[in-house]
Amino acid sequence: MVGNKKLQTIIEGVLSGKTDMLSKAITLVESQRSEDREDAAKVLAACSSSPGTSLRIAISGAPGVGKSTFINVFGQHLIQKGKRVAVLAIDPSSEKSKGSILGDKTRMAQLAVEINAYIRPSPTSGALGGITRNTHEAMLLCEAAGFDVIIIETVGVGQSETAVSNLVDLFILLVIAGAGDELQGIKRGIMEQADLVVVNKSDRAEKVNLRTAIQDLKNALHMFPPNDKGFAVEVLSSSAIENKNIDIVCEKALDLFSTMQNSGVLDRSRSEKAVTLMHQMLRTRILGVVFDRITNQEMRTMETAINNGELSPFQAVDELLKTVIGFT
Amino acid sequence: MVGNKKLQTIIEGVLSGKTDMLSKAITLVESQRSEDREDAAKVLAACSSSPGTSLRIAISGAPGVGKSTFINVFGQHLIQKGKRVAVLAIDPSSEKSKGSILGDKTRMAQLAVEINAYIRPSPTSGALGGITRNTHEAMLLCEAAGFDVIIIETVGVGQSETAVSNLVDLFILLVIAGAGDELQGIKRGIMEQADLVVVNKSDRAEKVNLRTAIQDLKNALHMFPPNDKGFAVEVLSSSAIENKNIDIVCEKALDLFSTMQNSGVLDRSRSEKAVTLMHQMLRTRILGVVFDRITNQEMRTMETAINNGELSPFQAVDELLKTVIGFT
Repeated sequence: MVGNKKLQTIIEGVLSGKTDMLSKAITLVESQRSEDREDAAKVLAACSSSPGTSLRIAISGAPGVGKSTFINVFGQHLIQKGKRVAVLAIDPSSEKSKGSILGDKTRMAQLAVEINAYIRPSPTSGALGGITRNTHEAMLLCEAAGFDVIIIETVGVGQSETAVSNLVDLFILLVIAGAGDELQGIKRGIMEQADLVVVNKSDRAEKVNLRTAIQDLKNALHMFPPNDKGFAVEVLSSSAIENKNIDIVCEKALDLFSTMQNSGVLDRSRSEKAVTLMHQMLRTRILGVVFDRITNQEMRTMETAINNGELSPFQAVDELLKTVIGFT
Repeated sequence: MVGNKKLQTIIEGVLSGKTDMLSKAITLVESQRSEDREDAAKVLAACSSSPGTSLRIAISGAPGVGKSTFINVFGQHLIQKGKRVAVLAIDPSSEKSKGSILGDKTRMAQLAVEINAYIRPSPTSGALGGITRNTHEAMLLCEAAGFDVIIIETVGVGQSETAVSNLVDLFILLVIAGAGDELQGIKRGIMEQADLVVVNKSDRAEKVNLRTAIQDLKNALHMFPPNDKGFAVEVLSSSAIENKNIDIVCEKALDLFSTMQNSGVLDRSRSEKAVTLMHQMLRTRILGVVFDRITNQEMRTMETAINNGELSPFQAVDELLKTVIGFT
């Protein structure tokens, strides 16, 4: 508990767009201390009254694809168009890649100094489903603070990462052009979440490789059923480091958003995604709670029994449900 | 309980390859009556003593792709090569397609009359995970009855259908060549389970469409990481109705199986799949048990609250876990 007066200061600060208060509010909702939960709920309730009109974008891609450099330039283009931009960024110290250890301010140096930008590292570990919830609540707070565009940086792997697609309006997937097998690094399933695919680091690719990469991606996208938003998924290319074509990606994202707004697709999409997210989180939480009751030792014993032919997989499941979990 | 003497007759009948006794044994393991469970366990225990050396094949594909016609011809080729062939077939009356309602004997007429063939309709509905277990146990019984090849016909949709890939040694995916978008009907994820892809009904496709379909499939397969069995997934074409190239598919399947046997990959693959299946079934069963405690009405109430903005997806999950399921 931070006291009612302090809490009021935080709430008013967020609602008037003060980023120092926004940071305090996000820290509060991220807190796992039980005494902070009540305060966090109050702040969220006070800040979630108006429906969000911000554009929520996930920018996803494997480590090394140049996400932070891309967001650094992308964010500046948005600001030039009069937008206030919040970035919920991956904490580089917790990313598995050899990413910068100098922190987000350095990773997105030019964007960080903009008055209309706010960059906040996101926790990338924690309880099952916890990251998604933290990201969702941080996003709502950024909206309450008047940010027009909320960018969520994500590596697109793992359950929590996949759930992010249900938090946003647009999912932009960054890839790089390689030697024809650039797609192998992409987690299965992530392609079908993409609303826009961008081949980044075009400066490093031979022209022919870039063309092949774009064509391969188009072929791959062609395999998925058309999305239900009423637009085809396009493949663009960009070079963040040379500031090339990022303006086109920026324009495209804003266009798609206003199309979705005007057609009513945006509201429907948000509703559907919220319900999907609920089901997804429910499954995650249920499995989390139940699996917590099974020790690694118990699981290994069953696996060994299966490998030795002592139990069928189904008998092992019966055993675990009966003796370990207490289900009938 | 069928009585000890009757049970012994069934067991001995299965072990000596009598198909009438095999049918009785499968009926017993499929039974949901609790008084049959003990008998079923005895039969399975008596029949599972020797490790299976049969080739287990799933033949999968969307309704209309010609699975039963394919299996009818495929099975006859196997029999010509001296194999005894068991087919666990989809019950056509329960398939959603406009499939034949004349039963499996008619769907696979020529195969059905072969002395070395056994065709058994599989239940395609039932408790979560139940179909997979029934199929697994029916397969073990067919092996005990001396069948060299067990073919499981599957439509490749739904959780239970996906689990089938962990029951078999080879997963053959049938598709048809259409107007360039033949892949859209394929459930995402099923491509990566395939060990062999066959474009069936080649008689109906224009040559250029067939070529395009094969190339599209090769491109799509190229996107997946190589499988861990040590062979590349090939794309073949066939016409079951004209008995064209099915012999090639048959030869290929037997080749892959003996390669896997000789390299030791088969044993490893079966072990790994059994463990994967255990985890998969465990999740399915846990979710089944817990979701059974939530009524449709309770779920709809939460969805409405989310759509009305009264609850966030995360708050809805908290509510369901706390009040409905009793989790903390």
